[in-house]
Amino acid sequence: MSRIYNFSAGPAVLPEEVLKTAADEMLDFKDSGMSVMEMSHRGKEFKEIIETAEADLRELMNIPDNYKVLFLQGGASLQFAMIPLNLMIQNKKADYIHTGQWTKKAISEAKKYGTVNVIATSEADNYTYIPEPDPASFSKDADYFYIASNNTIYGTRYTDIPDTGDVPLVADMSSNILSEPVDVKKFGVIFAGAQKNIGPAGLTIVIIRDDLIGKAPDNTPSMLNYATHANAGSMYNTPPCYAIYIAGLVFKWIKGKGGMETIKKNNIEKAQILYDYIDSSALFKSPVKKKDRSLMNVPFVCGDKELDAKFIEEASKLGLKSLKGHRTVGGMRASIYNAMPLSGVKTLVAFMQEFEKNNT
Amino acid sequence: MSRIYNFSAGPAVLPEEVLKTAADEMLDFKDSGMSVMEMSHRGKEFKEIIETAEADLRELMNIPDNYKVLFLQGGASLQFAMIPLNLMIQNKKADYIHTGQWTKKAISEAKKYGTVNVIATSEADNYTYIPEPDPASFSKDADYFYIASNNTIYGTRYTDIPDTGDVPLVADMSSNILSEPVDVKKFGVIFAGAQKNIGPAGLTIVIIRDDLIGKAPDNTPSMLNYATHANAGSMYNTPPCYAIYIAGLVFKWIKGKGGMETIKKNNIEKAQILYDYIDSSALFKSPVKKKDRSLMNVPFVCGDKELDAKFIEEASKLGLKSLKGHRTVGGMRASIYNAMPLSGVKTLVAFMQEFEKNNT
Repeated sequence: MSRIYNFSAGPAVLPEEVLKTAADEMLDFKDSGMSVMEMSHRGKEFKEIIETAEADLRELMNIPDNYKVLFLQGGASLQFAMIPLNLMIQNKKADYIHTGQWTKKAISEAKKYGTVNVIATSEADNYTYIPEPDPASFSKDADYFYIASNNTIYGTRYTDIPDTGDVPLVADMSSNILSEPVDVKKFGVIFAGAQKNIGPAGLTIVIIRDDLIGKAPDNTPSMLNYATHANAGSMYNTPPCYAIYIAGLVFKWIKGKGGMETIKKNNIEKAQILYDYIDSSALFKSPVKKKDRSLMNVPFVCGDKELDAKFIEEASKLGLKSLKGHRTVGGMRASIYNAMPLSGVKTLVAFMQEFEKNNT
Repeated sequence: MSRIYNFSAGPAVLPEEVLKTAADEMLDFKDSGMSVMEMSHRGKEFKEIIETAEADLRELMNIPDNYKVLFLQGGASLQFAMIPLNLMIQNKKADYIHTGQWTKKAISEAKKYGTVNVIATSEADNYTYIPEPDPASFSKDADYFYIASNNTIYGTRYTDIPDTGDVPLVADMSSNILSEPVDVKKFGVIFAGAQKNIGPAGLTIVIIRDDLIGKAPDNTPSMLNYATHANAGSMYNTPPCYAIYIAGLVFKWIKGKGGMETIKKNNIEKAQILYDYIDSSALFKSPVKKKDRSLMNVPFVCGDKELDAKFIEEASKLGLKSLKGHRTVGGMRASIYNAMPLSGVKTLVAFMQEFEKNNT
C-alpha cells in the first residue's frame, strides 16, 4: 500500500522525510557501522544525538537557560504522579482546571499526595470548552496550578494561558507541544508525551524551571525525582535512545520548515480549512466552542451513528484512516498534527463534501 | 562504513536481519501505509504486534499461565523501586545478595521502603564471584529474595539459582535474559531492561507471578503498581510501541535460530572460545572465578593501562568496537550477547593472539 493519510490521535503521523532518514540510517548511522538502537548511550555518537536534540528543542521553543530539558520515560501518565511528588511539598495543595479524561487522571493521582482544588471544569458540558475562572478564585498558597493545554479527545485548547502569578503553572502539552510558539517563561513545568508531535511513544519531554527541582522528599523513587534526571543530564540510566534520535530528526524537520512561526501558520491554515467547511456544512457539526478549538484535534459529528460508521468506512477505503471519534464524544475526529500535510486535510474536506452531497 | 563488531555492554548489537526488516517496514508496515511508530496502540495492527511478541516470549521462555508478561518503561532502575513498592508489604523486609553496582542501586532504593538484609556479597573482592550463602541464613519472613542473575560490569552469573522456598525470588535478568533456558517457576518476578538481549532501550520486560500482583498500597503511583499494567494488558497508557515491535522481531529471530537450547549452545560456544584463549594467554587474564563466568559479558585485563589503551585503539581500527572495560574493573570487556555472531568472537580472539604476539 502507499502511504495513507493517518488522522490517528496518537501515536500519530510522522514526517515522511524523518522516516526515510531513519530507514536509511537503520543499519549504519553516519558511518558508525551501527544502528542508533545498538549504540552505547555513553558513546560519542549518542552524546551528539541527545545534545543536538536538546539544543534544537531549546532553539525552537526559545527555552530560557534557567529551565532544564529532560528526556524521560513513562508518558504523561507518569508525570501525573511526578508533578505532585516533586512539587506538592510546601503546602501540599494545588489548583487544577479539569478539562477532560487526562486532567481527571492527573487529579486522581495528585489526590494521593495532597489537596486538589478543582477550581473550574467544563465536565457538565462534556468538556466542549475551556473554562475561564476568575483569577480571584485561584489559591494563593497552592504549590502549583495545573492545566492540560490541549485536550486530544474533545478538541479544545487554551488560547489564553491563565496568569497564576507566583504560583508555578504546570501544563500537560502532550497533544499541542510544538504546534505553535509558547512563552515558556509563563510556565513552571511543561511536559509532553512524544507520540503526537515529537516522535515515537516511550519518550516524555519535561521542561522544568530550575527552582522547582530538588524539592522531592528522600523516600521518592529515584526515577520519579526530577533532580535525579536533571543532575545526570537525562542519563541517570539508559534513556530511550532511539526515540530521542527520532525526536531529534523531527526537531530538525521543524527547523527546516522555518521554525515555530511557519509551523503555526501551516497549522492554522490546515485547521481553518477543516473548521470553515464544518461550520458551513448542513451535515457535520463541531461540538467545540469556537474560541477554544484545537489546532491539532478536530472532532466533528453528524448526529447519526449509522452515517458516522458509513463515513468512517468509506473514508478508510480512500486511505483517510483513523477518523473514528473517541467513544465519549462519538462521531469523527481528525487529528492533524504538524506532520499531517495540507494535502491530507484538503483530501479529507473534499471527501466530506462528496459524502455530504451523497447523504443529505 | 560496513557493519562493525559491536561489543558494547548495552545498548548492544542487534541481529542484522531484524534491523533489515525494520528498515524495510519503516514507511509501510505490512501494507498498512504507516510506520509502526505512527500507529495507534489501540489499532488492530499494533494489537497483533504486542500479542504476538508476548506469545513468542511465553513460548521461548516456557512461561507458565499463572505469570503475567508486562511491557513497561523506565528500565531496571525503575524496577528497583517497583519491586519493594509492590512486594515489600507483609513484613516490610527482603533479602538481597549484593553482587555489584546494580544490586547496590537496587538495595539503596529498597531501603526507602523497608528493611534490607544483605545476606551475602562479593564486594570485598570487587564482585569477581557469586557468593553462595548457606540457605539457613535466608530470612524466613522476607517478603522476597533478590538477585541480579548476571552482572554486566563484572562478568559474573549465577549458575545455581538459590532455593528460597516459599519466599518469592526476584531476579534482575537485564543482561542475560534469553541467553539460556531458565525455569521461570523458580522465580516470583523476572525483569529485564530490553537494551541487551531484547531490543532498543526504553522497554522493560516484567514476568510476574499472579499472586504477587495487587499488594501495593493505594498511594502507590498508578504507573508503579504492577496491577495497573497487568489489568490493562500493558496498555494502561501508550506503551513503547516501536521498542515492542523490535523486541517481537528479535523473538522471531531467536525462534528461527531454533529457540533457547540452540541459543544456549551458540552462547556457550562463543564464550568458550574467548575464555579458553584468555586462560591460555600469558598476557590477558579473566578476573572472574571460573564457575561464575558470564556467557554474555567477558572482562579481561592485561594489567598495564598503556597496553589496555593500545589494545582498545588497535581493535577499534579493525572494527572491533566498544571493548573498553568498565572503570571499576579496568582493562577490556567483550559483551557477546545473542546477536554477536561467532565470527565476531573469532575475529576478536585472532586479534588478541596477534596483539599478544606483538606485545610480549
